[in-house]
Amino acid sequence: MITSTSNPKIQRIKALQKRARVRREEQAFVVEGVRLTEEALQAGCKPQIAFFTEDLNPRGQEQVNQLENQGTPLELVEPHVMQAASDTQAPQGILLVLPLQALPLPEKVTFALILDQLRDPGNLGTILRTALAAGVDAIFLSPGSVDAFSPKVLRAGMGAHFRLPVVKQSWEELGTTIEQTGLQVLLAAAGEGDSYLDADLSKPTALLLGGEARGASEEAAQLTSERIHIPMPGEAESLNAAVAASVLMFEVVRQRG
Amino acid sequence: MITSTSNPKIQRIKALQKRARVRREEQAFVVEGVRLTEEALQAGCKPQIAFFTEDLNPRGQEQVNQLENQGTPLELVEPHVMQAASDTQAPQGILLVLPLQALPLPEKVTFALILDQLRDPGNLGTILRTALAAGVDAIFLSPGSVDAFSPKVLRAGMGAHFRLPVVKQSWEELGTTIEQTGLQVLLAAAGEGDSYLDADLSKPTALLLGGEARGASEEAAQLTSERIHIPMPGEAESLNAAVAASVLMFEVVRQRG
Repeated sequence: MITSTSNPKIQRIKALQKRARVRREEQAFVVEGVRLTEEALQAGCKPQIAFFTEDLNPRGQEQVNQLENQGTPLELVEPHVMQAASDTQAPQGILLVLPLQALPLPEKVTFALILDQLRDPGNLGTILRTALAAGVDAIFLSPGSVDAFSPKVLRAGMGAHFRLPVVKQSWEELGTTIEQTGLQVLLAAAGEGDSYLDADLSKPTALLLGGEARGASEEAAQLTSERIHIPMPGEAESLNAAVAASVLMFEVVRQRG
Repeated sequence: MITSTSNPKIQRIKALQKRARVRREEQAFVVEGVRLTEEALQAGCKPQIAFFTEDLNPRGQEQVNQLENQGTPLELVEPHVMQAASDTQAPQGILLVLPLQALPLPEKVTFALILDQLRDPGNLGTILRTALAAGVDAIFLSPGSVDAFSPKVLRAGMGAHFRLPVVKQSWEELGTTIEQTGLQVLLAAAGEGDSYLDADLSKPTALLLGGEARGASEEAAQLTSERIHIPMPGEAESLNAAVAASVLMFEVVRQRG
């Protein structure tokens, strides 16, 4: 049983939770809470190691049994140690370290999102969750976007991370990806181009969405000349980035019926 | 100049920020930050009192001048006092107290939202912002919903509070409102009833949305027997409450085109 928060394994968890650089270097990330670990295990993720407390609820205890059966290294820790390792104020008593490897792209990509300089972790997580529901095949993150495997993004993503390829690419790589997949790229830009309702979204499509503050970057604009917008009959000047993405995604779903 | 955080006016601000009960008793709420105060002033809100710091930026200084011209009581405060009064970690140096009175309903309500036991302040704010953009006439909050005038809801609402009637009603009052307005009430419930795409949303409509955790309550279900859902081609089992609301609202906009 780990009884000290200065245990090196716990220090490693804290670093993985806090720093995108550490996650990148170690090619690992942390998932916690009964619901999210359940999603990870159901999706077939293979944890490097799992930590749990004695006061874990029965649903969590079942996960520990499953992990033990499949040979995952397990560490029992004291509640105050779990608290130190956790990113939440009331940890549920289970925490996994998972390998950070993007799921493979499906052979045919007909529906993708390209997110450009998205900065808000809650928005990114919500977009991932919605994308999984809308049947998106892959998410591409531009340089400058927030890290998709931070605790906040994982919480808002509600398990989408374990089922949806989330790929960080340079603009050059993105250009190649677009060529190879043959996707039309539609840049969402407030008030510019056609209404999204007039776009033919039944074609293989990548929706390109800019960040919250400044919209899409120059590099994004160079990827495509086609722009769409969401007409707003009311008085507001803009939509939340996750809302705009969601409205566009479900119009794709509608047109593909 | 107010130099002490124990000044009674500052204590009142703190109580108004933190407690829905105090806001209800005093019929007042607090708005802070240059962008949100600008929205409030542009919408014609009349502050009871305004607080500012000397290091306020020029855009905020202009608002102070405007407030002075219209006779609003002004208080210069030291930065550490503003910090104590503020709900944010980096206050911008301007803060207003506004009267808490719902905007009047328009004569004809053809598009309304009824939110049932919505608990997440960020979701409620995002829904208000989207509703303003989508041309919603009024928002009704059921008993048990989070207070719409808390700092978090106001921030996520991005000014929608100053232009959109947001009315808290009992279920009895809601029943009367529905009768009087003649709105069809469509309850959004995962997997139940028709697809939202098959509903006739060109008719005067109230969308009834349940909270994040348990969906709509029994009382909500008694308000209507008509249910709609958003078909999801992907693997996810649910959408974020603000996302579901937004997708439904923009389908209303599309059908009314």
